[in-house]
Amino acid sequence: MQNLPKIILVRPQLAENIGMTARAMLNCGLYEMRLVAPHQSPTDSKALAASSGAEKILHHAQIFSTLDEALKDLNLVLATTARRRNQVKAIYTADKAAEILHQKINEQAQCGVLFGPERTGLENDEVSKADAIIEIPLNPEHCSLNLSQAVLLVGYEWYKKQLNPPREIFQTNAGKLADKEELLNFFEFLEASLKQYKNFQDAEKRPSLQRNIRNIFSRNQMTKQELNTLYGIINALKSSKD
Amino acid sequence: MQNLPKIILVRPQLAENIGMTARAMLNCGLYEMRLVAPHQSPTDSKALAASSGAEKILHHAQIFSTLDEALKDLNLVLATTARRRNQVKAIYTADKAAEILHQKINEQAQCGVLFGPERTGLENDEVSKADAIIEIPLNPEHCSLNLSQAVLLVGYEWYKKQLNPPREIFQTNAGKLADKEELLNFFEFLEASLKQYKNFQDAEKRPSLQRNIRNIFSRNQMTKQELNTLYGIINALKSSKD
Repeated sequence: MQNLPKIILVRPQLAENIGMTARAMLNCGLYEMRLVAPHQSPTDSKALAASSGAEKILHHAQIFSTLDEALKDLNLVLATTARRRNQVKAIYTADKAAEILHQKINEQAQCGVLFGPERTGLENDEVSKADAIIEIPLNPEHCSLNLSQAVLLVGYEWYKKQLNPPREIFQTNAGKLADKEELLNFFEFLEASLKQYKNFQDAEKRPSLQRNIRNIFSRNQMTKQELNTLYGIINALKSSKD
Repeated sequence: MQNLPKIILVRPQLAENIGMTARAMLNCGLYEMRLVAPHQSPTDSKALAASSGAEKILHHAQIFSTLDEALKDLNLVLATTARRRNQVKAIYTADKAAEILHQKINEQAQCGVLFGPERTGLENDEVSKADAIIEIPLNPEHCSLNLSQAVLLVGYEWYKKQLNPPREIFQTNAGKLADKEELLNFFEFLEASLKQYKNFQDAEKRPSLQRNIRNIFSRNQMTKQELNTLYGIINALKSSKD
């Protein structure tokens, strides 16, 4: 089985939150949930309903009565906190934490991330058992997150680093991009169609008008099919009778 | 007032989701919510309860009956989608989208991000009115997100980048970017000019032709001056005699 970080919910209060957390985990390709003394069962009907398709994670969730039991086979544990504790520990952003998790997992370490109960967060004693702290960078005047949203942000950063997805794709509708020759032919056609246009006959205005037209159509990477659409439109306009 | 991206929820179904979205916005330092034909009021008691302290955003939310109304004063609109559409547009990760939003806002542009209804997402026609698409990189086998979680991830990336200066500037030749109302008016004018076009009269071909046209002109962020150039060209074509 693939070695993945374990998401450890400490004393979660509400079944819905356990379910929504499972959904967020699945969104991020995380499958191993651990629960420490949960107030409701992960297979409670409300949890299953809130998981929107992530029931498998709930059925496989491991339940522990103490935090120590939940941590004992792990090598690296990071604790999420919304407020600063007076503890001597490294504090990572979610982004940096994801980097550390990937690095440790590459080294075959077993890793886990701790999330505290909805209202109160982790106790200081619980935080002290972690190797380091994760602080998610958010509006300092309103940084309290729903449990599943905290898991989502940590998981999202994990997932992003796993993939290294391209940050920008240009989608072309399966159509091929026009090449520059086709574009230049189009300009010629359009400009020939504008022979009777007053501004275009004007030798002073013509060069800048021509540049404007070329700029408009050059910077949006048209497909061959779109060029055809434009030919169709221009021909239709030319033969329209007002 | 600080210029910030507007979060635009199109036909949201549930008051709880509107409330949770307001909470996620506040987490990320985003304050301006727009709602297009919401099924429930942003100040419904369930929305207020779910917002956990972000009531102010709900009380100030602007409500519009159509998407066009909600977009008309904006210069740049990004649409979030979970599945690929056959439209010719750039697709950004949430990370890259945040970079673009910061860059445009530095240039005084008004920006918005569109989120579709919970179950169905945005319609193709709605997506075609956006300049580009945001795809949040997530587990492809389970990428459906709760509405507020989609807003949270986009907002989180925005917040993270808030302090970084832009590395690229879009030069507009001192001309102001056209706003969406001007662009929508232009589409109306162009489409009215095509009344006699055979393909446009054909009820089957018309919707996709219309989307093609909108995509061509939506994704290159035209200036007001360039729009005027296009009006001039179309009028010239209409009165030309071959």
